[in-house]
Parts: sequence; structure tokens; C-alpha cells
Amino acid sequence: MSFSDQADRTLALLAVTPGWQRLRSLRQDCDDETVAAIVGEAASFAERVLAPLDAVGDRIGCRIENGRVVTPPGFAAGYRQFAAAGWIGIDVGECHGGSGLPLAVQAACAPLFERGCMSLMMAAGSARAACHLLAAVADAETADRWIPKLLAGDWAATICISEPDAGSDVGRIRTAAAWHDGIWRVTGQKVWISFGDHDLCGRIGHCLLARTGEEAGTRGLSLFLVPDRHADGRPNGVTPERIEEKMGLHGSPTCALRFEAAEAILLGEAGRGLPQLFAMIEQMRLQTGGQGLGLASACCDIAEAYARERRQGGAPDAPAVPIAAHPDVRRQLRSMRHRTEILRAAHLEIACAMDLARIAQDPPDRAAARDFAGTLLPLIKTFGAEAGFDIASAGIQVLGGAGYTKDWPLERHLRDARVMSIYEGTTGMQAIDLLARRLWRDGGMGLEICLERAAADIALGGGALARSGMEAVEEFRALLAHMQALKATPEAGLERADSFLRAFWCLVSIWMLRRLGSVGLGEDELRQSVDRLRAELALFGRLCR
Amino acid sequence: MSFSDQADRTLALLAVTPGWQRLRSLRQDCDDETVAAIVGEAASFAERVLAPLDAVGDRIGCRIENGRVVTPPGFAAGYRQFAAAGWIGIDVGECHGGSGLPLAVQAACAPLFERGCMSLMMAAGSARAACHLLAAVADAETADRWIPKLLAGDWAATICISEPDAGSDVGRIRTAAAWHDGIWRVTGQKVWISFGDHDLCGRIGHCLLARTGEEAGTRGLSLFLVPDRHADGRPNGVTPERIEEKMGLHGSPTCALRFEAAEAILLGEAGRGLPQLFAMIEQMRLQTGGQGLGLASACCDIAEAYARERRQGGAPDAPAVPIAAHPDVRRQLRSMRHRTEILRAAHLEIACAMDLARIAQDPPDRAAARDFAGTLLPLIKTFGAEAGFDIASAGIQVLGGAGYTKDWPLERHLRDARVMSIYEGTTGMQAIDLLARRLWRDGGMGLEICLERAAADIALGGGALARSGMEAVEEFRALLAHMQALKATPEAGLERADSFLRAFWCLVSIWMLRRLGSVGLGEDELRQSVDRLRAELALFGRLCR
Repeated sequence: MSFSDQADRTLALLAVTPGWQRLRSLRQDCDDETVAAIVGEAASFAERVLAPLDAVGDRIGCRIENGRVVTPPGFAAGYRQFAAAGWIGIDVGECHGGSGLPLAVQAACAPLFERGCMSLMMAAGSARAACHLLAAVADAETADRWIPKLLAGDWAATICISEPDAGSDVGRIRTAAAWHDGIWRVTGQKVWISFGDHDLCGRIGHCLLARTGEEAGTRGLSLFLVPDRHADGRPNGVTPERIEEKMGLHGSPTCALRFEAAEAILLGEAGRGLPQLFAMIEQMRLQTGGQGLGLASACCDIAEAYARERRQGGAPDAPAVPIAAHPDVRRQLRSMRHRTEILRAAHLEIACAMDLARIAQDPPDRAAARDFAGTLLPLIKTFGAEAGFDIASAGIQVLGGAGYTKDWPLERHLRDARVMSIYEGTTGMQAIDLLARRLWRDGGMGLEICLERAAADIALGGGALARSGMEAVEEFRALLAHMQALKATPEAGLERADSFLRAFWCLVSIWMLRRLGSVGLGEDELRQSVDRLRAELALFGRLCR
Repeated sequence: MSFSDQADRTLALLAVTPGWQRLRSLRQDCDDETVAAIVGEAASFAERVLAPLDAVGDRIGCRIENGRVVTPPGFAAGYRQFAAAGWIGIDVGECHGGSGLPLAVQAACAPLFERGCMSLMMAAGSARAACHLLAAVADAETADRWIPKLLAGDWAATICISEPDAGSDVGRIRTAAAWHDGIWRVTGQKVWISFGDHDLCGRIGHCLLARTGEEAGTRGLSLFLVPDRHADGRPNGVTPERIEEKMGLHGSPTCALRFEAAEAILLGEAGRGLPQLFAMIEQMRLQTGGQGLGLASACCDIAEAYARERRQGGAPDAPAVPIAAHPDVRRQLRSMRHRTEILRAAHLEIACAMDLARIAQDPPDRAAARDFAGTLLPLIKTFGAEAGFDIASAGIQVLGGAGYTKDWPLERHLRDARVMSIYEGTTGMQAIDLLARRLWRDGGMGLEICLERAAADIALGGGALARSGMEAVEEFRALLAHMQALKATPEAGLERADSFLRAFWCLVSIWMLRRLGSVGLGEDELRQSVDRLRAELALFGRLCR
């Protein structure tokens, strides 16, 4: 039931997302009925096929046996079904065998899948990212050979960036590629590789950053495709050395891999490895936001249903009342629901913008959409991750002792969610991205566009809510000028980057709240939420001074 | 090393706790040297004996075998050693075989033990609570028979309150005691019983609330001691039915127990079960605060040490710098450390007050100490619990991917900590306790005393910090009047209870910050923290309006 509720909320919010209206005018094939059918089918698939795998994956986890990673029972079959249903390629170009739908449609479906089984979706996410990456930068032969196999679930892929001494600091990668006798060979160690090895399918292509030049930092890095074995099945010098024992996400084997003179295909231009990866990194950050949204949606639904059923308190000589009737529980549930729906609205907003950055007709429109999306991305990544974790924790609180047990999925969701603030760029990196890159380096054009759109949307509604929202916009504008000025003293600025990121999210949340009427939230409770968000904006604004 | 650091910080803060100075004047035996020796020995014991058990307890957990609970390897021996060293009875009266030291000394040691192995300490905590309870309300024969056995670790105890339909809502307890042929017999089910069964020692006494009267609610409840078996070893109708599968605290078996006509000893007066338990409940809430403090201390130390060692970032052509040098990491570490030391100071403050409530010479002094301690207690319970969880999570963030693995204890501490906001009265119940009981029902005398003492301490220091602190006191005083007025509209008040609790903690934190110079925090960073806390106070104050 709640998967289909989630689908309904998604469609209701999509309908009031301005970017979606623009996108639809460019994509006649994406009529309401088609999209509703797709999202509805995603909900059904997630509930039927993926959800039953989640607890199994957590309980049994992965292990290395005879040098290969064994995934939990049912994962391989689930993965094949996911691929066969065409879900990996929703937004991959038709020329490569995908469905060629907008990213927005993919983003509408993804949180349903993440809710179903986030750990298995780590494999699907890498395959999809690799498809996009290969479509963008690989030579035609490589793309034509790999993308259809990835879409079919016959082959899989990983993204290999981190190394023991190069986590957030990508420039210190030491894995090296050498050109010899017309063949690139990669040697080195990669860590934190999700599904770095597994038994879901027949072959794994590692999309990997390695050093090809002498230049220090990121400039000497190139991008390669390194298959774990040759087409004929012979091994290619790639060894899974270890699976990390993690707090959660046990169904997703996080591997340390050793590459020993592994044959590799150069992707795109030598020395342009990192810039070529950027589009893929953006996709992964959006995916993280969707993971958080999926888990937050689940936890909200569970807590609400529990609070309607569970009876405690009330007059001692009368039957106990549902705990949802207690003011403090009501407050908790409302806060969880609002955070979740705000995130859902923002997640759709940014996905539409990422589409428009690609397909809007005028170049200035495309540039504006790109700046806008790039500026929202650190927010979606950070607060999607935090919402997943916090709302799982809030759900546990509503359920009390029961929530702390494995009788309910909340504690699993909390453990799974904790990593989301770390991978794909930690919260600290997102804060630096917003401040140092988007504002200081790029001049804050994306922030300016956000403020204009927020102001326009907020003003539309009129009334007290609009007045309060407009004040928030002005407050944030003043903060922006302050943060811009800190460019002169970067240490002081960077120490405030986290508060700035949070202040910005308060503003975007106030903006998105305007849309939540469409998912049934009343004017009164929206006003309360705006008040709360304004108080939080004031807090973070103050911490930035 | 870090256990002894923690002991040093504790002693430094104790020395500047005003209540401790007063207490020492009443207890000549508690000279500095003696107390330092005790706390130092606690640190050493925790590190040597308890800490090695923690990971084992988490990994192996507990199971039911042949109808009895089997605890993790080493737990039974550790428990015996803990008891043999006299730690269970630090503050239990000498007349009962304890050391008769102030609670403050116990509270100085407890977070060290909790840091060592919180799950095993759940057993010790129940035994100690039972000693206090029996000393207060049991007949002399029962007390004399049980307390020495509990202190020696030969026997153990539990506190049985919750039932499937009576969690926060104690008045709905259905377990009943019947008086027949001169014997009380208890029948019913109890859930969430920590160490409800185990193999640590020979006999378990269940301190249990059961219904003896017809009256609805809590009035018909009486307190019993129900041994799991008779003195000769015959079973007494107590069966562990289940161990909960929890997110953490695996070393502590959380049991569902069935009592079938189990022979029971009435403790104190029939119908006075709940009021008689209150002192014990207060002890358990203080213990929870100490648990959070112990875990927070561990996580702080680990994150600081890691950030000094781990190198990432800096100029690409220079060696990487320790991550502690990055402004955002510095900010994270500082925030963790300040929260931890504020909690430590407040924990000692309240423990001293609980002692003074018992032994101060003038009755008005005792009453004031009681009101004061009772008012601080919901804070220590709530924010001790939250600090344990949040600082474990913050520590994971500092360590990045490594923190998410079982290579480090942070993820275990996070899982263990999550239950602390639930048991011994959820955060929601603490907020109601502060607002509806301390302020509305009792008139807020304890809050008034807090404000007076805070103002006096804050004013002492002088300077900008004192001015800002005094403003905070005035702000909170205004908030207090507002919340008092909400007594007329209790629903509206209760919806704000959580924010009120948080606002109060901001104020107490500002007050405690004054003492942190003694643990080496500089004036500048203290001022930053006061600014942050004042901004948070403003936020929560606003949410109360």
C-alpha cells in the first residue's frame, strides 16, 4: 500500500513542479498517463520484487568465497528481473538501447526502488552511471559493446575512485596506467568500491581513475574501463581483497580491489579523467538524495501507521488512545512528514533542471538550468542523506522500544542511511562545493537564479505565507552578500560553510513548502513549518556571522 | 590512555562544581586524594577489564539455550571482577556492605565503566538500583539477605516495569499479585527487561510492579521482589520467553519474561509501588546520562586522535595535511568536545545535588537540592542520551568511510546509544516531566533555583561572556513566564514541551561552559560556543511561541 502512496505523492508533486511543465512541453511523449503508468509500475515492482530482498540482504550480507564475492540469496535473480524490466536504462538514450526518458522520470521512480532494496540498487546505480559515462566519453565500439550488456544485466560496472590515501582528496590517487605494446595496463589498489566484485552477472567493468601523467593533483588522471575478466572469461588481474564490515548496507559488498597490470580501455581523453567523471558524479549525488528520500518515505509511513494503531495513555479509566493523539507524537510525525515531502519536491525540481540543462532549446536556458541544478545538488545530496538517517531515527523514537528491534525495518534503514552523508562527497565537501565553487569561484549565478525562482514561486501564493517567505528570501540575500565577502578570508568562510549550506536548505525548504498543499498538507501546518524554518534560517544565518 | 584522560577531565570539572565543594565540607572522608585514587582506579579497571568485552558482546550477543540466557564469553567473569572490586556498591550504605561514598563519586566513575562496556553495565546498574531500592523499602530481613549478595555479584537483580500494553503508560500494567495462604504470587508478562535472565551469577531477584488493588491507573500497583528461583535452587515460575533482537546493546539480553504464580516478597507498602520506585527511577535516569557521557567521551577521543593522524588535502604538490587542520573538521571536533564537556559538568552538578538532597543539614537546603536535581534530571537523561548518539554519529563523520566500518568502535557506540533516548522514559516523557510536572504542577521552584544559580555563576566570571550569559538568563526567564501561561491551554503547551526542554538545555549549557576553562578550553572558543548556544536558545524560544 505505502509504495503506491509514495508513487501518488511523487506524481502529485511532479505535477506542480514548474520545471516539469517546461520539460513536458519539450517531450510530447511524457504525457501524464504514461508517466503515471511508469511510476506506478515502479512502485509495484519495488514492492513485489525488491522489498522482500532487503532484510535478507542485511541479515546474510556478502562474503568472499574462492576469491569471488557471494551476494545474498535472491540478489542475482532480483537484479536480472530489474534489468529485464528495463529499469536500469529508463533515462539512457534509445540509441544505446535505453528508454530515453527524462531524468525526471527516472528520479520519480528511483526512491521507490531505494525504498525496496537500497543495497541491491547500489549495483544498479553503478551500472546506470557507467552507461551514461560510456555513452558520453567512450569510443563507439566500447559503448556499443558494453552499454547493451549493462542494460540487460548481463554485465555490471563499478566506479573506482578512492584509494587508501585518496578519499576526499582525489588528487592523491596513485593507481597508475602504463601504455605498453599498444595496451594500457592498470596497477594499484582501490577501496570503498560498491559491488567491486559479485555474482550477479558474468562480467564487471570497472570505470576507474588512474594516473597517466606526471602532473601532480587531478590533472594527471585519466579514465579507464577495466573489465574484471576478458571476453573469453580469462581473468584480467583484478582481485577483490576484502569486503568491508560495515554498520549497514550489508547487501552491498564494499570491496578493496587490487589491479595488477590489468588491461584497460582508455575512456575519452588522457588527463581529462576527473572532468569527464563530473556528470557521473552529479548523477551519483542525485541518486544519494533519492536513497535518502526512499528511506525517509518508508520510515514516515511506518511511523504514521504505527502511531494510529498503537495505544498508550489517556485517562486511566478509559481505553488507551492512539499515540498519534498525543501532542508531542503529533509534532514528531508532522516534522518527519514535512521534511520528507520537502525533500521529494526539491528532488524532482533538481532532476527536471538537470534535464533542461541538456535539452532546453536556448543555450542561455540550458546554462541557467545547469547553474541552478549544480547549486541545488549539494543540498539534495546532503539533506537527502540526512533526512534518510534522521527520519529513520525519528521513526524509531515514535515506535519506542519496538523501533529499536529488528521486528521493524527502521533500525536497518538507519544503519543503511548512515553512509549516505559520507560517500559521493561528504557533507563537508558539499558545503565547500556550495561556498568555494558555486559562490566564490563561479560568482553565485546559480544561487541568484534559485533566489529569483524562489521569490517568484513564493510570491504567487499571496497571503501571510508569501509575506513570510519573501522576508526569508531577503534575509538569505543579505547572508549571501556576507558570505561572498568572506572570500577575502577563506579560512573564516570555510569554517562557516556548513552553516551556510544549512541556511540555504532552510530557504529552499520554505520555497518547496508552497507545493505541499498538493500532497494534502493544510495551510495551518504549512505556516507552522515556515515559522520553524525561518527560526532555523535565523540560527544558521547567525552562525555564519 | 584516553580512559585516564577522561578521569582527569572528570576530576578537573568536579573540582569546580560548587555542589561538590559543599558536599566535601559534609564528607571529610572525600578528600581530593581519595577521590582521585578512586576515579583513577575506575579508569584503569574500565580499560583493563571492561573494554575488551565490548566488541565481543556486540558480535556474539546473547541467546536462549535450554530455557536460560547465555551471555557473551567473558561477561560472567567480568561481572564477578566488577563486583569483587566493590564497584556495584560505591554509594550503597556501609550498613549494607557498600562503600557509602557520595553518589557524586559513583557518577564520576560510572561514565568510565559505561565507556568500557555499556552492555555489561546494564546488569550492574540494575543490581545497584535494586540495592538502593531494597535499602529504602524492603523489610530488614529481605534487605540483609539480598543486598550483600547483590554487592558481591553472587546474585543479580532486574527492574520489571513495562508490559506489552504498558510502556510509557505505566498505569496500564496488568501483571497481578494475589495473596493466598500467606504468600504473594505474581502472574503476568513483563517486557524490555534488561538482563531479565542470564548466567552471570546464581540467582536473579526481579523488582517488579504488579497490581494488587482494584483501583485503575498507578494507584493499584505494588512493588515486589520475585526471585527467579528459590533459595534451594527450585524454579519459581519465571520463564524468559524471548530475547529481543536489537539494533545494538547485543551484550545486554533484553528479555520478555513470564511469571506464573511466582512467589513474591512485598516491598514496602501495598498500593505504593510507583512512588516507592521513584528514587530508583531517578537513579536510572542519571545512569542513562552517564552512559551517554561515557560513549560521547570515547567518540570524541577517537575522532580527535584520528583527525590528528589521518592526512588528506592541502596543496597537491605538498604532503597531505592532517584533517584536523581543515576548518570544517576543526569545527566538527570542537562542537563534539564542547557538547561532551558541558554534559560532563552538568552530570556532576546534578549528582552532587542529589547527594545534598539527602545529606544537607538544613531541611530547606535539602528541599532546594531536591527541586534543583529533579529539574535538571530530564535534561541529563535526554541530552546525555542524545550526546551519546549524536557524538558517535559525528565521530563517524570525522572518520568518513572508516567510521562506518566495524574496524572502529564508533558504529557500535552509535547502535548502542540509540536506545538511550527511549528507555528510562522517552524524550517525550522527559519533556512532559519538565513542563507539566516541574513547572505546571510544582510551580517551577526547581527552575527558579536553576536560574538563580546559573545567574550567580555566570556573573562571577565577568566580561563579555558574562554579559552574554546574563542576557541568556533573562531571555529564558521570559520564556518561562510564557510557558507557565500555557498551563491554561495544555495541548498547546505540550506541543511545545520538546522545544522548551531544548531551550532549557541551551541555558544550562551556557552556564556549564563557564567551567570548561578547567578542562583546557580557551576563552575564544568558549565565546564562540556561547554565541552558538544563544542562537539555539533563540530558535527554541521562538518555537515555543
